[in-house]
Amino acid sequence: MPRLAYVNGRYVAHRDAHVHIEDRGYQLSDGVYEVVPVIGGRLVDEEPHLDRLEYSLRELRIAAPRSRGALRYICRELVRRNGVTSGIVYMQVTRGVAPRDHKFPKAAAPAIVVTTKQFRGPSAQLLEQGARVVTIPDIRWARCDIKSIALLPNVLGKQQAQESGAFEAWMVDKDGMVTEGTSTNSWIVTADKRVVTRQLSSAILAGITRGSLLKLIAADGYVFEQRPFAVAEARAAAEAFLTSSTSLVLPVTQIDDARIGDGKPGPLTRKLREIFLTYVAQ
Amino acid sequence: MPRLAYVNGRYVAHRDAHVHIEDRGYQLSDGVYEVVPVIGGRLVDEEPHLDRLEYSLRELRIAAPRSRGALRYICRELVRRNGVTSGIVYMQVTRGVAPRDHKFPKAAAPAIVVTTKQFRGPSAQLLEQGARVVTIPDIRWARCDIKSIALLPNVLGKQQAQESGAFEAWMVDKDGMVTEGTSTNSWIVTADKRVVTRQLSSAILAGITRGSLLKLIAADGYVFEQRPFAVAEARAAAEAFLTSSTSLVLPVTQIDDARIGDGKPGPLTRKLREIFLTYVAQ
Repeated sequence: MPRLAYVNGRYVAHRDAHVHIEDRGYQLSDGVYEVVPVIGGRLVDEEPHLDRLEYSLRELRIAAPRSRGALRYICRELVRRNGVTSGIVYMQVTRGVAPRDHKFPKAAAPAIVVTTKQFRGPSAQLLEQGARVVTIPDIRWARCDIKSIALLPNVLGKQQAQESGAFEAWMVDKDGMVTEGTSTNSWIVTADKRVVTRQLSSAILAGITRGSLLKLIAADGYVFEQRPFAVAEARAAAEAFLTSSTSLVLPVTQIDDARIGDGKPGPLTRKLREIFLTYVAQ
Repeated sequence: MPRLAYVNGRYVAHRDAHVHIEDRGYQLSDGVYEVVPVIGGRLVDEEPHLDRLEYSLRELRIAAPRSRGALRYICRELVRRNGVTSGIVYMQVTRGVAPRDHKFPKAAAPAIVVTTKQFRGPSAQLLEQGARVVTIPDIRWARCDIKSIALLPNVLGKQQAQESGAFEAWMVDKDGMVTEGTSTNSWIVTADKRVVTRQLSSAILAGITRGSLLKLIAADGYVFEQRPFAVAEARAAAEAFLTSSTSLVLPVTQIDDARIGDGKPGPLTRKLREIFLTYVAQ
């Protein structure tokens, strides 16, 4: 069975999935995307992901390419046809095809591409050892709340992490405070067991896993704070972890040269991963 | 005769010119571009454009998709086949097609697309009246010296200009200094006839028209300064203009609500446009 992609109204073989060279996503990064986890064949947090897709589109004034109901259907249908049990659905919406010109075209229908990927999440070894992260300057634009495909700085940051033997790079603003990872949100746990992650603003993406985890933390009576934290505070933290649609809750055990806690995934981090896995299994 | 595009080794009808959905240009804005003016059927400043393309590729560590000689040939061949007499050649190079992942793929051949467009440059009316520009905050990333396709902030800025009835938006940094336009470089002329444009740094693109004009200005004995200028200085300037591959030298006669000089294209600006037109006609 060939893997299928959904491209502007048609389910096509992934290898034959093409877009026009004047799709504004290709020439101008004029589009947005979502990555929805699939666990046990089901989409996790589908509604918040669709909410955020709508937010990104609204901020860029790109029309919705399909109704919300149709998007739900397309995602599920593609998961079913591709037999995805564990992995992700990737959705990308651009302003559509038009002769190249920076300003919005007068008439262009938004373009939509949906793909799936089957994979198992972080390896047992990574979960056991915890991830290493490096810190790098945050060189991105001022609207990181929009989940745009203008990801070049994230690409460069992730590559830098990779070449440093790290799993992720945490980006640091001009004040020395961590914003977020190149494709993940950043968290620390203080000595008195407060869970800290940066508050929402245009400096970070409102991670869906981040949002769901905050609700679970509150419901379970843990204490959390949404505020910026400095690299120095993170390096000296009791625990650290990151969240994303592909990693869910992943312990961080090293930041640059600093071992976090005793260098093993922290107890509260493990507990939060467990709580999150229970949540997504529901 | 159908208009042709060059796509990864083949000349294809423009309407049939497609790239794979996993071309990293489409999903990650992981690519760069150049726009080379064509005047009288000839490419203008082709070598500096190819130099800058190589610079952008080198900064992103994307391999050259073709030799320099082959790129020259492809551009000229496409201009010839499409019968372009006045307009532009557009070249785009991305890191190529690979399963979506932020970090660089281990094996992917860079992808290249080349197109042409026939058009006549700014209208006689625009040249006679001069352009209106608005000023907006510069919200772009920290590496504007790379001519990347991550153009979403430029798209939003140009649209804002358009909706304000302006031709262009000049972007302003946190210190209140003009960086550049969304697709043009920014210039003013002081009361004592000094031509001022911002010095090169990672805050602006090294415009090819900008570079050539600076050489012509120097050769003709005009005085110029490369330094930042504030919005207030620009609004009070004797003259203002912008440069780009499509506009060449275009007078600016209004910045936000301020009329520049007497509200007509300035004499030195007209002279510089004339000098530049003579240069490109050679």
